[in-house]
Amino acid sequence: MNASPLKVAAVVFPEFELLDLFGPLELLGLLRDRASLSIVAEHADPVASSQGPKVVVDCPMADVAAVDVLLVPGGWGTRREVQNEPFLQLLRTLAGRARYVTSVCTGSALLARAGLLDGKRATSNKRVFDWVVTQGPNVTWVRQARWVEDGMYFTSSGVSAGMDMALGLIQRLYDRTTSLQIAKGAEYTWHEDPLVDPFAVPEQKKA
Amino acid sequence: MNASPLKVAAVVFPEFELLDLFGPLELLGLLRDRASLSIVAEHADPVASSQGPKVVVDCPMADVAAVDVLLVPGGWGTRREVQNEPFLQLLRTLAGRARYVTSVCTGSALLARAGLLDGKRATSNKRVFDWVVTQGPNVTWVRQARWVEDGMYFTSSGVSAGMDMALGLIQRLYDRTTSLQIAKGAEYTWHEDPLVDPFAVPEQKKA
Repeated sequence: MNASPLKVAAVVFPEFELLDLFGPLELLGLLRDRASLSIVAEHADPVASSQGPKVVVDCPMADVAAVDVLLVPGGWGTRREVQNEPFLQLLRTLAGRARYVTSVCTGSALLARAGLLDGKRATSNKRVFDWVVTQGPNVTWVRQARWVEDGMYFTSSGVSAGMDMALGLIQRLYDRTTSLQIAKGAEYTWHEDPLVDPFAVPEQKKA
Repeated sequence: MNASPLKVAAVVFPEFELLDLFGPLELLGLLRDRASLSIVAEHADPVASSQGPKVVVDCPMADVAAVDVLLVPGGWGTRREVQNEPFLQLLRTLAGRARYVTSVCTGSALLARAGLLDGKRATSNKRVFDWVVTQGPNVTWVRQARWVEDGMYFTSSGVSAGMDMALGLIQRLYDRTTSLQIAKGAEYTWHEDPLVDPFAVPEQKKA
């Protein structure tokens, strides 16, 4: 059992959402020495969240080699980053080097805008769902799901849904027992069924 | 409605637990311009969490003036910090300048060791509860509670319980409607009853 640790790279950008990032990182981090977490960004300087607290960047995105899990949070900053082509290009390159690409909340708008979700099923935050849909016209958007798994892509709904998705990913990487042990370690009640979504919203009617 | 924003100071130390800190900060941060969050620590350098990611310190603890909410996370680092008297003294001083003092997980061991919980009811992480109890012999430890409110002190159980406690605090500061709106914004199902604790453990029998 000397497998090398799971390499997790979490992308940050100005005004990322705190829990989108640190909820999944908490749970992946509870894999202890079976996982190695790093924070990556377009530039090397610390990055401020939507809420204010700032995180240190461990590595610029351009310098990241292959990773097992790429994590892309949402937050208000996604409204700006969907128009940041150099950032989207770094995201495409990194996704091409990842075994699994995951997003929380409006992080899926970034993946969609980068073209990474074309032809795939995906979900996002339910309060800004209609905006996210416009970022990926070739994506099959799922309005009622805590998270959606399609091949190497795991996209989740808003904020705390990222924790349920992370446990779903851990189940895929290891097994259900491991996910339940980690949830217990965090005293977190895992919403295990990805189709049970208390925050789902119907499609808006066109005016 | 030009009330000054709620001043929240979150204490970090080496090997703090990510979600203990960022779960409550996410929810308090969703108060938007009604809250101002800062990260404080014994020293000014960035501080690494138990899981690896590092946070920028906004202000050394010694320089913090009055705050509305002091947040103390847990994590492996608490085992060292309970013996760090200069840190505990800073914690006492800051608690004396706070309207509310809150903790998540083994953060209550730090408050207990600083003597701040003497004569009060409090709770903590359920997997290391017996260790926490030894840090505060004059505290009334509650083994079955998601969180415990006693006057200005809000202590919560392990890791994700901090989010439920934060919503309980927001209810105390504002009202239940505000807590429910914030929970919905984070797509979080609030475990609203502090007495419902799926992770409670019985007291260990003495050998």
